[in-house]
Amino acid sequence: MKIGMSHGAGGELMQDLISDIILSNIRNTRVNGGVGLEDLDDGASIPLGEYEIVISTDGHTIDPLFFPGGDIGKIAVAGTVNDISVMGARPIAIASAMVLSEGFRGEELERIVRSMDAVSEETGVSIITGDTKVMEKDKLDRMIITTTGIGVVKRGEIVRDSGLRPGDMIILTGSVGDHGMALMAFREGFGYDTELESDVAPVWEMVEAALSTGGVTAMKDPTRGGIANALNELAEKSGVGMVVEEERIPVKEEVLAVSEMLGIDPYEVANEGKVIIGVDPEYADEVLDAIRKTRYGGEAQIIGEVNSERHVILETRLGGRRILEAPVADPVPRVC
Amino acid sequence: MKIGMSHGAGGELMQDLISDIILSNIRNTRVNGGVGLEDLDDGASIPLGEYEIVISTDGHTIDPLFFPGGDIGKIAVAGTVNDISVMGARPIAIASAMVLSEGFRGEELERIVRSMDAVSEETGVSIITGDTKVMEKDKLDRMIITTTGIGVVKRGEIVRDSGLRPGDMIILTGSVGDHGMALMAFREGFGYDTELESDVAPVWEMVEAALSTGGVTAMKDPTRGGIANALNELAEKSGVGMVVEEERIPVKEEVLAVSEMLGIDPYEVANEGKVIIGVDPEYADEVLDAIRKTRYGGEAQIIGEVNSERHVILETRLGGRRILEAPVADPVPRVC
Ligand SMILES: Nc1ncnc2c1ncn2[C@@H]1O[C@H](COP(=O)(O)OP(=O)(O)OP(=O)(O)O)[C@@H](O)[C@H]1O
Ligand SMILES: Nc1ncnc2c1ncn2[C@@H]1O[C@H](COP(=O)(O)OP(=O)(O)OP(=O)(O)O)[C@@H](O)[C@H]1O
Ligand SMILES: [Mg+2]
Ligand SMILES: [Mg+2]
Ligand SMILES: [Mg+2]
Ligand SMILES: [Mg+2]
Ligand SMILES: [Mg+2]
Ligand SMILES: [Mg+2]
Repeated sequence: MKIGMSHGAGGELMQDLISDIILSNIRNTRVNGGVGLEDLDDGASIPLGEYEIVISTDGHTIDPLFFPGGDIGKIAVAGTVNDISVMGARPIAIASAMVLSEGFRGEELERIVRSMDAVSEETGVSIITGDTKVMEKDKLDRMIITTTGIGVVKRGEIVRDSGLRPGDMIILTGSVGDHGMALMAFREGFGYDTELESDVAPVWEMVEAALSTGGVTAMKDPTRGGIANALNELAEKSGVGMVVEEERIPVKEEVLAVSEMLGIDPYEVANEGKVIIGVDPEYADEVLDAIRKTRYGGEAQIIGEVNSERHVILETRLGGRRILEAPVADPVPRVC
Repeated sequence: MKIGMSHGAGGELMQDLISDIILSNIRNTRVNGGVGLEDLDDGASIPLGEYEIVISTDGHTIDPLFFPGGDIGKIAVAGTVNDISVMGARPIAIASAMVLSEGFRGEELERIVRSMDAVSEETGVSIITGDTKVMEKDKLDRMIITTTGIGVVKRGEIVRDSGLRPGDMIILTGSVGDHGMALMAFREGFGYDTELESDVAPVWEMVEAALSTGGVTAMKDPTRGGIANALNELAEKSGVGMVVEEERIPVKEEVLAVSEMLGIDPYEVANEGKVIIGVDPEYADEVLDAIRKTRYGGEAQIIGEVNSERHVILETRLGGRRILEAPVADPVPRVC
């Protein structure tokens, strides 16, 4: 078996690789009863005294490094802040390991470090340690940044991606497909002409607003594989189904346009500043209001409801129903 | 300014890059008064309740992936366990982010994951979360693994690399130069003919033996830049000098042979299973004994003594004295 691009594309093929080669060969996968490797959640946790430490890591191989709406530095810090956030933990620190290609320009590196700093400042997260390696010019394309985040939550208050219960409402914090489509459009040469921008942003403020309102049962950031992947993971892990109303899923006009032009489903591509939140129906409206008051949450919507069936069912704009399947792989490669 | 190979080679050039481009552009570098970015220690720390969480990250770009004595999986987990250990913290968990090149063979990946598992089992550390990305065949040479470790220590018991005091004894836990020279010899085609092997191993058992005996004032693992770099960093950060007796520094015959053949100083190349430990003189013999009883500590030596001057002074075998300078860069690239 050989690794293909789709093994890194956040769909079922990647899941299989992780199960077959990684999970099956690692014996110690959990600390002290916390969330561990085989839970395949957005991160893991380590119970310690009255706290639970949350940890999550992501390598960033995005191409190009600078794109409309952000750059690799912004996505590296925001992405990791987001995985910590959706576990219900306040992100507090980041470790940043950089691998640079020989000949990389110092000014570009500086611009990237400043982007990391900006997100760190916005979220109150500190960048406390790191590592720097260099590879020969022909051995690495430009750079890779791997960020690992640490968060803290009171013991027992962690939020899992498996916590949905029949009757819960599903909140989506804003429009979908922006990141993947903006990247694809930019690569295809539509350049900075369109208004299309990545949505890359830290979601902690929205998550904090939701958590402090109450009733949150599950969360996930719909990154690689898009909402199609994230909704299916949430449903499958929780052992439930859901019905989602398509007309309530915000999709920007430019995203739709590019998506039709390129034949790519906006539900299957990465978002980098959105959260899907399961909420007890009694709290749903209040949580929605709280999220809408935050910087990135203005367009939040209740998009559906959890049931005790299987499958993620989409009620289309025309009143039809179809199963929304998890993609085999994200159709846009190297998005993060 | 453009990045060169030596910017990733663990000497003064790398330090300058980190100060000029990274430190100067990051505002939040510390959490809650713990060890932070500008301390440039082996990792950082986050005080939390009665504990201190220690975190350290390293990207691994070693070439070749499999070498005499180990492979990238072993070095990734052991290296991170070691940086946590030398901060005085018990390593408990690892996050593992892999970037694979398209076409990478599944069987090789499996072998690497098994090596990671073996070190994790030996040290009682769990691998609790990770990430997988794939880059196009011509964009990355084989694979990169970035491991981030989490350790825990009682608050106030962290060990820094700046804690040496005049009068302290310097313990070195075994022979130097093995990793760098084994790699270099292997690359030069001496192959598996020589007995020369990397020393890659987890140091936690030695560190734990030292800590539980008492009197430890400072620690560092002499990786990139070798003991020349590590001894100078310890001295400089502690504001002290030291005299080291060359005849007490264990160097294997094969290492010396290769080092002479290639004109590379064994003090300037990476070790991956050694620790330099500063100890209160009253505890030195006892700590030495304790380390010698451990699996990897049989050759441990007291190699020198801290004074209140500056510089690391080497007393040579012939009775002369010379300053041991920190290298500008490790002479063997891509060793970890
Ligand atoms: N190489 C690996 N080793 C160990 N665990 C892995 C590895 N790759 C992925 N995982 C685990 O698989 C699960 C899914 O990983 P994935 O990267 O899709 O999550 P994510 O970070 O939330 O998404 P994204 O990377 O798209 O932002 C996580 O629980 C992660 O810990
Ligand atoms: N890209 C980076 N961003 C932030 N901090 C960095 C970066 N690179 C290195 N550092 C910091 O510089 C210091 C020295 O790093 P270095 O990698 O040499 O330490 P090490 O991991 O102990 O050694 P080695 O990597 O050879 O095993 C550490 O404190 C590290 O946190
Ligand atoms: Mg996630
Ligand atoms: Mg992620
Ligand atoms: Mg390092
Ligand atoms: Mg170190
Ligand atoms: Mg290290
Ligand atoms: Mg990930």
